[in-house]
Amino acid sequence: MSTLLLDKNAVQSMLNMADVINVVEEAFTVWGQGKGNMPAKSYLPVEHGDFRAMPAALPGCVSMKWVNAHPQNSSHNLPTVMAIVIYNDPETGYPLAVMDGTRITAYRTGATAAIASKYLARRDSRTLGIVGAGCQAYTQILAHAEVFGLEQINVFDISKVAMGRLIRSLPEFSVRECPLEEVATSDIICTLTPSRSPVIKKEWIVAGTHINAVGADAEGKEELDPSILREAMVVIDDPRQASTGGEINVPIRKGLFTIDEIYATLAEVVVGKKQGRTDSKIITIFDSTGIAIEDAAVAKLVFEKAQQIGGFPSVDFVGV
Amino acid sequence: MSTLLLDKNAVQSMLNMADVINVVEEAFTVWGQGKGNMPAKSYLPVEHGDFRAMPAALPGCVSMKWVNAHPQNSSHNLPTVMAIVIYNDPETGYPLAVMDGTRITAYRTGATAAIASKYLARRDSRTLGIVGAGCQAYTQILAHAEVFGLEQINVFDISKVAMGRLIRSLPEFSVRECPLEEVATSDIICTLTPSRSPVIKKEWIVAGTHINAVGADAEGKEELDPSILREAMVVIDDPRQASTGGEINVPIRKGLFTIDEIYATLAEVVVGKKQGRTDSKIITIFDSTGIAIEDAAVAKLVFEKAQQIGGFPSVDFVGV
Repeated sequence: MSTLLLDKNAVQSMLNMADVINVVEEAFTVWGQGKGNMPAKSYLPVEHGDFRAMPAALPGCVSMKWVNAHPQNSSHNLPTVMAIVIYNDPETGYPLAVMDGTRITAYRTGATAAIASKYLARRDSRTLGIVGAGCQAYTQILAHAEVFGLEQINVFDISKVAMGRLIRSLPEFSVRECPLEEVATSDIICTLTPSRSPVIKKEWIVAGTHINAVGADAEGKEELDPSILREAMVVIDDPRQASTGGEINVPIRKGLFTIDEIYATLAEVVVGKKQGRTDSKIITIFDSTGIAIEDAAVAKLVFEKAQQIGGFPSVDFVGV
Repeated sequence: MSTLLLDKNAVQSMLNMADVINVVEEAFTVWGQGKGNMPAKSYLPVEHGDFRAMPAALPGCVSMKWVNAHPQNSSHNLPTVMAIVIYNDPETGYPLAVMDGTRITAYRTGATAAIASKYLARRDSRTLGIVGAGCQAYTQILAHAEVFGLEQINVFDISKVAMGRLIRSLPEFSVRECPLEEVATSDIICTLTPSRSPVIKKEWIVAGTHINAVGADAEGKEELDPSILREAMVVIDDPRQASTGGEINVPIRKGLFTIDEIYATLAEVVVGKKQGRTDSKIITIFDSTGIAIEDAAVAKLVFEKAQQIGGFPSVDFVGV
């Protein structure tokens, strides 16, 4: 036996956004049915950053993503975030594959937000607002374009360079630079910044908007005026992660929002335990922190495609 | 940049027990000085076994061991336990190596017990008792032979085959089969079984004995008559792990031992915050559950040797 080695290019070549959306939605479905297992992230802070271990089991697969975040990495010409996923056979524990987790993270984050939008945004949404034109922006656009008939994508970033790069890299979509206030009037907004203070003001948001708040993933981070949360239907991915590191973490700490005000988890909505949007006028928010079942589902997709294609390198790490 | 791939044979070829003891003792020293970081193991149960994520940081290194335990694996011709270690640069998070963790686990477990014996057993210990002749037995013997002038190694296992295999594989040592009661009269005893009820009786243990209780590593497991614990100086590796899954877990649950009766952690003893053995007549016990700083220290040793030797395969998983 041996363990498949799948680098970033190999993983990228096997990722198709429509497939990723399908397997991630299926993961939320089975998770909502009470299947699978996902212990708390194990969080390891170090001097210049941190590491997280994100294990999960779903029916037929087990994976563990080990991912760093080192904010000063650009000075080393390295990405801030680098991830490796170990993918195991749940029956025996054998490590079937070791693969890049960086592309998996980007795709599953975009897919999850688009799934949230599918259930929470207005079905006739035609405009997508992107706040933050970094690497998450690409997969948010790809994923939402699979689910909605997008006519216009409005982008704001404090970096003109980042906006230009994003627009040039997606010639097949109608993407344009916009003032932030105008981006905020899009039918669906994705906030993708590392901000530690609100960037989206309450008065900009129109009735019927859906917001995917994706940027906040650690204590102290927030992107939305907390008064938006108070009037919105708030859906989260994981109660523990959202309350300690998601968009709601700062408002909860300041007493501006409580856990009781959370409407549902995304799994509850996907599986039908809670209804998604029922009224075209309400504001809906999905607070995305990123959960390990998303990675497990995509790792399984990648592994199975790699097996079909064949020819990838492998090594028998554990020697059996 | 790229990530070194070190399989079981490569890792084995770079492991020398004297070196492993040195780096593991250094890890306990710096840990006892309050350096490093080790979050709780993340535990993922599945239908036929479980997985654990064991991250740790020590000065200059970060690692994450992902290890399964599938008790029925012999029916698949696979080992019960298989581990992979991801070794990272703490400065940037870059994954420097992915390596077999199975050999690392065996070596660091033997080394840690021998370090415990160094501080807790009588310095003139000459006999080593091994209860359970599985794969842990080899490294316990190798490690204790580095630290003590062993004249006789007494082995008991319910399997004659396992005992014979162990004895034949270590012709350089004086190893002999013994009745269990006689093994229990050795100066140092290592219990290495998966037992869920005591195998070592109180009346067998003579004054001055040191016991490394290594087998119990999960809730419900125990190897020693709890009355031995009550009269002994009990040292543990990690309070959280020992009380939930170590030798003391069942006695604590039954009210036969309390956390307050723990004398010290091994790190406290190694760093000199608590004294080791002071009296040749007392019974000492080290409750070993296995902690992630041990793996981090040995992974660093392996990585640095691999860099020196050169020529190992590598892959740039994260594509930078």
